[in-house]
Amino acid sequence: MAEPRTSRRGLLALGGALLAGGAAAGVTTSGWLDKPGAAEASGDVVPFYGTHQAGIGTPTQDRLAFAAYDLTVSGSVRQNRAALSTLLQTWTAAAAAMTQGRTVPGGNTDPAAPPADTGEAYGLSPANLTITFGFGTSLFDGRFGLAGRRPAALADLPDLPPADLDPDRCGGDLAIQACADDPVVAFHVIRNLARIGRDTAVMRWSQLGFGKAASNGSDQQTPRNLMGFKDGTRNIPGDNIQLMDQHVWVGSETDQTWMRGGSYLVTRRIQMHIEAWDRDYLADQQNVIGRYKYSGAPLSGGNEFDQPDFTAIPARAHIRLAAHENNDGVRILRRGYSFTDGIVPSSGELDAGLFFIAYQKDPRQQFVALQRKLARGDALSEYIQHVGSGLFACPPGVTGPGHSWAQELLA
Amino acid sequence: MAEPRTSRRGLLALGGALLAGGAAAGVTTSGWLDKPGAAEASGDVVPFYGTHQAGIGTPTQDRLAFAAYDLTVSGSVRQNRAALSTLLQTWTAAAAAMTQGRTVPGGNTDPAAPPADTGEAYGLSPANLTITFGFGTSLFDGRFGLAGRRPAALADLPDLPPADLDPDRCGGDLAIQACADDPVVAFHVIRNLARIGRDTAVMRWSQLGFGKAASNGSDQQTPRNLMGFKDGTRNIPGDNIQLMDQHVWVGSETDQTWMRGGSYLVTRRIQMHIEAWDRDYLADQQNVIGRYKYSGAPLSGGNEFDQPDFTAIPARAHIRLAAHENNDGVRILRRGYSFTDGIVPSSGELDAGLFFIAYQKDPRQQFVALQRKLARGDALSEYIQHVGSGLFACPPGVTGPGHSWAQELLA
Repeated sequence: MAEPRTSRRGLLALGGALLAGGAAAGVTTSGWLDKPGAAEASGDVVPFYGTHQAGIGTPTQDRLAFAAYDLTVSGSVRQNRAALSTLLQTWTAAAAAMTQGRTVPGGNTDPAAPPADTGEAYGLSPANLTITFGFGTSLFDGRFGLAGRRPAALADLPDLPPADLDPDRCGGDLAIQACADDPVVAFHVIRNLARIGRDTAVMRWSQLGFGKAASNGSDQQTPRNLMGFKDGTRNIPGDNIQLMDQHVWVGSETDQTWMRGGSYLVTRRIQMHIEAWDRDYLADQQNVIGRYKYSGAPLSGGNEFDQPDFTAIPARAHIRLAAHENNDGVRILRRGYSFTDGIVPSSGELDAGLFFIAYQKDPRQQFVALQRKLARGDALSEYIQHVGSGLFACPPGVTGPGHSWAQELLA
Repeated sequence: MAEPRTSRRGLLALGGALLAGGAAAGVTTSGWLDKPGAAEASGDVVPFYGTHQAGIGTPTQDRLAFAAYDLTVSGSVRQNRAALSTLLQTWTAAAAAMTQGRTVPGGNTDPAAPPADTGEAYGLSPANLTITFGFGTSLFDGRFGLAGRRPAALADLPDLPPADLDPDRCGGDLAIQACADDPVVAFHVIRNLARIGRDTAVMRWSQLGFGKAASNGSDQQTPRNLMGFKDGTRNIPGDNIQLMDQHVWVGSETDQTWMRGGSYLVTRRIQMHIEAWDRDYLADQQNVIGRYKYSGAPLSGGNEFDQPDFTAIPARAHIRLAAHENNDGVRILRRGYSFTDGIVPSSGELDAGLFFIAYQKDPRQQFVALQRKLARGDALSEYIQHVGSGLFACPPGVTGPGHSWAQELLA
């Protein structure tokens, strides 16, 4: 917070000076008017500092920009650790600024230097931006001397059908989830963090989500995924502290105290065979999911939020197999987004589906256990394939200025 | 309009019936409650019928889904023409319904049939959806007997640097531009039109735009493109009838009367070398564009909307070369969107830029002439490359129910 509080909304150039023509024009008169507090007053700001990272239990925004980065360091363990620590300090400060609607710190008005901020979000509101950070499993190899600090819960994911994973859409040393109600604001984050980290980190893969596909309880209406069904009816409400502590936040059970208050993130890029799905009869679609398409009510009857009677729902229906009542109480917090990225060259199919995002306190007991169950019987498996995968340890929140992501791990 | 006026917002399943369990569950009780007029009352509906197609002069929405389709017919000219005519009648009726917030006509409640509508937009508002249709140059080959009806203005685009065109991102027999304030609503259109046309047309390429990058005069603030600069300050205002008639709508000068009241659409997928751009000094960036980055004011001084003094702006600056004052009064209506589609595999660069969309009455005299001028000197050329291209003849508007796109051409 050493940077001046320059609001994106308050930016104004002080034009109007007379200029000589020719190539030197434009050097002299760009500047900002600082209007502190303009962004904060707009009412669409999510606090960055806190016990937990924002973007997990906070309300789901409309848009996603997700990126995984690889670290490119090649020095000694000490040098590498220092480079990572510096990167995360810089990233944290930039993230704190961007979530509050401010520009990337570092200077944006020197005509003889590249601006620190790339500028496409100037003038836009903060749009409820949250930036959530995690470490991939590969971080805990030998490069940073952190092998002994790897949490047991961060165990590599086993093979989990139906999957045909593309290595270029999997893994990564670091992950950034940027969610906002404006896609420019979300993309601006992953672009600018790549720019800030360019001597230390490169983007490995990225994913835009263009419509939220899972509610976490804060919506008036449950959103629909690209299969046309409501998704998230029985999700964990992010404001239910008891359920969040029980299923999502890492607690005293962890073998690595630096993860207390954090959570484990599983991402799966789930391609839907939507042409095949669209040819399926309405009754079959409903039997695959276990709900009515239009109302979202369980096939056992009632309304959307009524308790399903699983004995009156087909045995292979997705909601029956995935229900916590049928999985020893296991639940995950989902936060997925629909995506579409054009056409799959090999098949001519639309490359569209669900970018699945789930948070939990132990993936071994939660996502992996649930997915193993689904792999054995889920009727939905005929229509989907997992083509990308990520597993990340998201540390607890940043408590205030001067603190940075995972500072306890890297100290 | 023979379909019942089923509003997406009015959809409710009539669940609640008791069901036997097992695989047959879900067959009996899905249904709709029809609430005519709910969508229309929401205030975010753009009229579909009119002299001109919507989506050209109407205010620019926040999101784009664009698709080009190839026709797969292989019969006689007469058969092919009939198939195309049927397709466009069906597409027009579907487009009329979707823009008004209704479902794709054809039946969505029969449990023993696939729903006509894929469903992901159920419950969403119309979001100011516009659907704009055009024919590519390839339509006027021998397949449909239309070679003699090709307008002279629909001349194939010449080579126009800086370009490295990917054939898989170029051309197409038909084009659909779907713009809306909700990306799900926009994507729903190109997906459902592909589904409706699946025996006649296949999607050739598609492009999502995630932030509008050019204002057409209806915004309070001019949006910024991914270079961080305001884009569209001097664009043709879509509600200026005189300028639209002068530059955008095809008039009596056309050699093909079926195009009167229509317009010609040029699309260019312009990849930005944003890593290189982001390393450039602020003063250089401003000299390349010819404007101040933060205010959008011309480098000659004043405020954003002040008349530039081009003699006080660098000779190779983009706005100086592109200005109508320096091009015999030639103007185009731009309606572009920013895009980002992950990472370019060959270079590791972000695959991001501007999906350029321009409407005009004669591309030979407008887009081609302007782009030839830019190709010779534009300082911006160092930072961009055109990788996709489209040219489409967009017929006039559909006048009412029973009329369909380009009916005059195909009669």
